[in-house]
Amino acid sequence: MKQLEKLIDRVVARVNVNLRNFSFDAEPFAKDVVPFKQMLRFNAFYGVTSHHPLHVNFKNSSLAGSYFLGKCFTDNAVLYKTDVRGDELKRKGDTMHFQGMEVPVEKDEEIHIKDSYLIKTLIHNYSHDPEAPEEFLIRNTLASFYSNIHGALVEGCYIAPFATVDLTSLHGCKVGTFAFVQSASDLYHEEIPDGTIWMNGETFEFKYTYDPEVLARYIKNVPGGKPEGVLWDFMEDRKDDYSDIYSSAVSTTPVTVSSKSALNRYAYVAGDTHIHENVLVSQRAYLDNAWMGPGTNAQEHSYVINSMLEKNDITAHGAKIINANLGERVFVGFNSFINGKPGMPVSIGAGSMVMPHTIIDVEEPLTIPERHAVWGYVRNEEDLKNHSISLDDLSKVTGEVTLGNLTFSGSGYDLVHGFEHRIDHILEANGAYFGDVSKVRGHAQAGHMISYNTLQPYLTGKNKGIFPTIDIQP
Amino acid sequence: MKQLEKLIDRVVARVNVNLRNFSFDAEPFAKDVVPFKQMLRFNAFYGVTSHHPLHVNFKNSSLAGSYFLGKCFTDNAVLYKTDVRGDELKRKGDTMHFQGMEVPVEKDEEIHIKDSYLIKTLIHNYSHDPEAPEEFLIRNTLASFYSNIHGALVEGCYIAPFATVDLTSLHGCKVGTFAFVQSASDLYHEEIPDGTIWMNGETFEFKYTYDPEVLARYIKNVPGGKPEGVLWDFMEDRKDDYSDIYSSAVSTTPVTVSSKSALNRYAYVAGDTHIHENVLVSQRAYLDNAWMGPGTNAQEHSYVINSMLEKNDITAHGAKIINANLGERVFVGFNSFINGKPGMPVSIGAGSMVMPHTIIDVEEPLTIPERHAVWGYVRNEEDLKNHSISLDDLSKVTGEVTLGNLTFSGSGYDLVHGFEHRIDHILEANGAYFGDVSKVRGHAQAGHMISYNTLQPYLTGKNKGIFPTIDIQP
Repeated sequence: MKQLEKLIDRVVARVNVNLRNFSFDAEPFAKDVVPFKQMLRFNAFYGVTSHHPLHVNFKNSSLAGSYFLGKCFTDNAVLYKTDVRGDELKRKGDTMHFQGMEVPVEKDEEIHIKDSYLIKTLIHNYSHDPEAPEEFLIRNTLASFYSNIHGALVEGCYIAPFATVDLTSLHGCKVGTFAFVQSASDLYHEEIPDGTIWMNGETFEFKYTYDPEVLARYIKNVPGGKPEGVLWDFMEDRKDDYSDIYSSAVSTTPVTVSSKSALNRYAYVAGDTHIHENVLVSQRAYLDNAWMGPGTNAQEHSYVINSMLEKNDITAHGAKIINANLGERVFVGFNSFINGKPGMPVSIGAGSMVMPHTIIDVEEPLTIPERHAVWGYVRNEEDLKNHSISLDDLSKVTGEVTLGNLTFSGSGYDLVHGFEHRIDHILEANGAYFGDVSKVRGHAQAGHMISYNTLQPYLTGKNKGIFPTIDIQP
Repeated sequence: MKQLEKLIDRVVARVNVNLRNFSFDAEPFAKDVVPFKQMLRFNAFYGVTSHHPLHVNFKNSSLAGSYFLGKCFTDNAVLYKTDVRGDELKRKGDTMHFQGMEVPVEKDEEIHIKDSYLIKTLIHNYSHDPEAPEEFLIRNTLASFYSNIHGALVEGCYIAPFATVDLTSLHGCKVGTFAFVQSASDLYHEEIPDGTIWMNGETFEFKYTYDPEVLARYIKNVPGGKPEGVLWDFMEDRKDDYSDIYSSAVSTTPVTVSSKSALNRYAYVAGDTHIHENVLVSQRAYLDNAWMGPGTNAQEHSYVINSMLEKNDITAHGAKIINANLGERVFVGFNSFINGKPGMPVSIGAGSMVMPHTIIDVEEPLTIPERHAVWGYVRNEEDLKNHSISLDDLSKVTGEVTLGNLTFSGSGYDLVHGFEHRIDHILEANGAYFGDVSKVRGHAQAGHMISYNTLQPYLTGKNKGIFPTIDIQP
């Protein structure tokens, strides 16, 4: 596995140079945690449909456990159990809207993942970089367990466990454990501290940081080892449930869905689960006793357990919904952990937004009213008061306000309406509206007839763990 | 599936033009038997090792159920459950020996399967065409169930069920049901009648034809339908046993083998089966209560059931060995059917040769002595007398002799010694000799660390059943 070791050394060296200002050494977070044997056990998957532009070119890469769709190119990337979806890439002739400007897209957008190293990371969506609308780039990036890159470019960065980079271009940044960053402008050599949730819009800023003790209980990064905490244990306790899915060459899902819904063959489905029309269940989504009402979705790495999603609800990447009931059009953001208990369910009213990286871990039954935003750490009604606001009230905010540990400044109206617009876009893109009212087909309609090319690396020789050069075109 | 239908029409038209002299219409043997749904269910497999030159390029092809290794190129080929192995392809710098001439090999040999159509066909080995040593070509060939192409070129031919073309270049030929042809020279627009076994060497000719009534009992081609007969039923009765193997993404074989032996993950293994050192068990081989002694092999599509192979025995492609005991260095040729019964075993002495396409279907226990050749239809000791000869006696034959329904002319010595030389080559190539005595590694040693790229066709759209363009290089 000489080639593979050299590759990891190179990525660590490049990331360390980029992060020199933070006195950060990426090595203990990369070298000792690479499960070399796992790199041989896991395949790469390339999805083929008649709906997506198709071109993949992997050259001397290691790609264990990766999942690709759309146009993808890579050099030497190590992508262990990484999901990369390409079904929202821009097409030639599209127009990208950015801060009031219109940027024409000159050719089909392509995913480039150069000498990156990512483990159990989710990468998704498309480039929100107006300077490179045709290129979804990630380069020399060291991302850790269950980190979440939603929109590129990302280059020369370290992204800690359970962190999310959303629609932001990062250059040489360090994103802390469970941190969330969404920024309207590029970030250069910036550090986002552990547990910081930061939405830095054009006309508003939404920011708070978790209490370090609380954060450590849920997720704690350990140099030279695996992370620890409730969130880590939650994932570890369920990871073996996927083994049957990956050891089978054919779909093992016990439920069938209509042609208006898509249940990915790499999703886990158990218990008394119902999947209605216009539902999208993505790869590595986990459904157990899940009632997925019309137009709902469970995105990559999300969990819906003993819960009911009424209609047009969104479960964003990595979100976990347990013992909860969601009214219509509820948004549950990236990596949020809604942990109701038996006899202590969480009810979320219609139109409410659980902001990304929210932790709701109840000690009593909890009801979030309709059209409210909720964030931070919530155990009971008392916490909820300090960590929620009605969308109508938030819309009226201008200037700076403090709500519990949250500092908000700027236009509340812009945040609320921006979010509502985005929710609408997500629902449409995922196919929630398809039918009598709308003719717009989304992932739920397009994604149910994916064929897979399953690729394996060399098992012996100096290229052990590296894939041959693979090029797939229409 | 428009593209796929057009492709089949084109192949039928081309084959019919080639076979116009035989007033033969390939259509009923091609069009009505194509299981379109099956074309979507089965994948293509491309094997990657660090031992074989690697380059595959499939362009707008349909490839269902195919298995490739080595350098392969294809255009539009429909290859349903077809095995194509490329691990014996010649390498740049090799020398091909042909009728006393030495032909230098200028570049790595490549398999080209152009607009062919093959179903459940086995294609193997390398080009024995001295005019094209670097190209293993098959083009516009319509091959039927379980036919066996061992060495190309083959172009514009129809090859009927259970027929074998061995080391022969065919141009516009029709090869009948269960016919076997091995010819030292090219064959142009020739018909090999049903059940004709014909070895046409440089210095000898070995030829007989099965009684049509006997043949029809074992295998009968049916226009517009599936074949019938004992051999067909034998295959059909066992085909479901492979389903677990193909529906699993990982090896399901219940036995482990040493690193000196190769058990292909697409082989079926059941019962009390033992696999010793230097054994090769190839894809779709079927072992049930099989004692595979050192240096033995079970090649593609072969069956070894309730049988013992002592040492260095060869089970050639498609051969079936049931309730039999083989001494050392027994050769069982292509598609031979050795059907011992419980209490009526077949014993075969050391050094004996069961010629290709022999049917031994006993009514009593049967013993074939050491160093004998056996052919034709054998049910009992009486039949055996008329269908066997000691290799020593055969070696002494010159001129023309008749032995039962067999006509032999030419040099018996050349046949016997040619065969013994070939057996030695097969054993060496398969790795039977690897160890203390010989350092020659064969398939048994090289073939146990194959990784697979598993490829699927488009499942929707006009290209339904067609694969995207795939190019794999080192």
